[in-house]
Amino acid sequence: MQKNNRDLFTDFITRLQVDICAALETADGKARFQTDNWERPGGGGGSTRVIGSGNVIEKGGVNISVVHGSLSEAAANHLNASGENFFACGLSLVIHPVSPLVPTVHANWRYFEITGAGGDVTDAWVGGGTDLTPWYLFDEDAIHFHQVQKASCDAFGDDLYPVFKKQCDDYFSNHHRDGERRGIGGIFFDHCRGDAHRSLATWISFAMNNGMAFTDAYLPIVARRKDLPYTAAQREWQEIRRSRYVEFNLLHDRGTLFGIRTNGRTESILMSLPPVVRFAYDHRAVPGSEEARLLEVLQKPKDWLATAAQRQTERALEA
Amino acid sequence: MQKNNRDLFTDFITRLQVDICAALETADGKARFQTDNWERPGGGGGSTRVIGSGNVIEKGGVNISVVHGSLSEAAANHLNASGENFFACGLSLVIHPVSPLVPTVHANWRYFEITGAGGDVTDAWVGGGTDLTPWYLFDEDAIHFHQVQKASCDAFGDDLYPVFKKQCDDYFSNHHRDGERRGIGGIFFDHCRGDAHRSLATWISFAMNNGMAFTDAYLPIVARRKDLPYTAAQREWQEIRRSRYVEFNLLHDRGTLFGIRTNGRTESILMSLPPVVRFAYDHRAVPGSEEARLLEVLQKPKDWLATAAQRQTERALEA
Repeated sequence: MQKNNRDLFTDFITRLQVDICAALETADGKARFQTDNWERPGGGGGSTRVIGSGNVIEKGGVNISVVHGSLSEAAANHLNASGENFFACGLSLVIHPVSPLVPTVHANWRYFEITGAGGDVTDAWVGGGTDLTPWYLFDEDAIHFHQVQKASCDAFGDDLYPVFKKQCDDYFSNHHRDGERRGIGGIFFDHCRGDAHRSLATWISFAMNNGMAFTDAYLPIVARRKDLPYTAAQREWQEIRRSRYVEFNLLHDRGTLFGIRTNGRTESILMSLPPVVRFAYDHRAVPGSEEARLLEVLQKPKDWLATAAQRQTERALEA
Repeated sequence: MQKNNRDLFTDFITRLQVDICAALETADGKARFQTDNWERPGGGGGSTRVIGSGNVIEKGGVNISVVHGSLSEAAANHLNASGENFFACGLSLVIHPVSPLVPTVHANWRYFEITGAGGDVTDAWVGGGTDLTPWYLFDEDAIHFHQVQKASCDAFGDDLYPVFKKQCDDYFSNHHRDGERRGIGGIFFDHCRGDAHRSLATWISFAMNNGMAFTDAYLPIVARRKDLPYTAAQREWQEIRRSRYVEFNLLHDRGTLFGIRTNGRTESILMSLPPVVRFAYDHRAVPGSEEARLLEVLQKPKDWLATAAQRQTERALEA
């Protein structure tokens, strides 16, 4: 008998959590994940796995939750959905490295179902994505990260990456900071429902495939940057810039606000916040500096793969 | 000719900013305020005065703004008001001291007017308050702070302090943290309109009187605590607890969210956030410790003056 979508996705995130945590522990070389299993009064629960004070990872979490219950009015408004009950399962991760030269990363893959009074599934969709927040720009890292995201999308059609790349740039935006982006993006997809073009089963595969690409997207970047020396000034810049990460998550992030407003487990939701943060009044980058170059890209997101393709062409012409 | 309410309150906050900044500079002994004057595209502007890296003050701001414009839909919904235009002026201050033994303080006094198409004032009210956020509890400081607030209220009737004290405890609450309060309160009042009992002019006097009591409420506490030695562990506790200050301001504070949603000046609004903050996963106080005693009071606000009165009675009986 075929697994239903709930079980399929739940098994997937359960397995992915194990795999990603193991890979991150190996990359860190010192820190170990600790596990908090919790139950939700309204139904379901989760497993929060946190790590910190490592060689590489200053603070991080790889959390799964599998929750269900009645679709309260608050949640219904937030989800823009109607029905009797909901089911939601997902994996969310955020890694805040010690070094300002190693980027922070966030990813999430989730499956939602709405059921009617009789238990019949009236709506179901998939969402998720992966995005990178560097404090210093290494173009090859940005290109690598986007290449992995594009390859993960292209396996399901080459129309997807450009759309989901743009959605990511649009979503992770601090509107109160003239639209400055949180990072250099990646992909973001949501409300992916089955239609004539792609079935729900295809979208579930798409999300699973993107989840399984996470370590390939992130860990090579960690390996390249983790042992580079950095200055106290670079570390301070990282701590200052982390304040924008906090602002985005607490002022704009739909997942965070949904969790807070529906009485989710606060510690699991706010695990995403960086460990040490400086809120500085009107801090500015020195014109022409590496810090200023980052800010330019955050104001005007770049098509990293166009750049990569262009370079390849240039190199070919030079040779 | 009598000044109108707008000019009266604007002159008051302008003068109060000068006085409070001068008193804080004297208390600090080293740091000096820097001034950023700004204009609001829609009408009006403000003067943001920030201070930092002092002997006593790690980061702080004493800001005034005098703004007016059309009552956009977003702002109208937020203010729960209807009309053509609005006028708002106020002073907001937040002081984050270096030492974990010196409490953080916040205060705000504001005057709002709504006008119709013909320029006639259709609604007007006063709001504000003063509240204290200690990281370690010194009962005599809490009692002193509340005594000054009570005296400031009692001058306008002894019915006010109990109401505004409770409103303060209710307002500065992290609902997502089981209602843990941001601090030990003070007073909070809002939508104080003229009625049969007290005229609008009386409420304006009330707010001005409370504003003028600020230095008496706060500076004696600073003087008592600023030179006390503290440990690295106490400083770390302060940095961890400051994360709750950030959570309240970005998730719940109406003034902050109103400012952000109505395209206020971001740097002036977010000046309230503490300078260095630690977001720690599931941090807990050691049972029976000073830190745990603070958390108990934040969970269950205390009637500090009942305690003070009780002590006085006890001392009188002992003598």
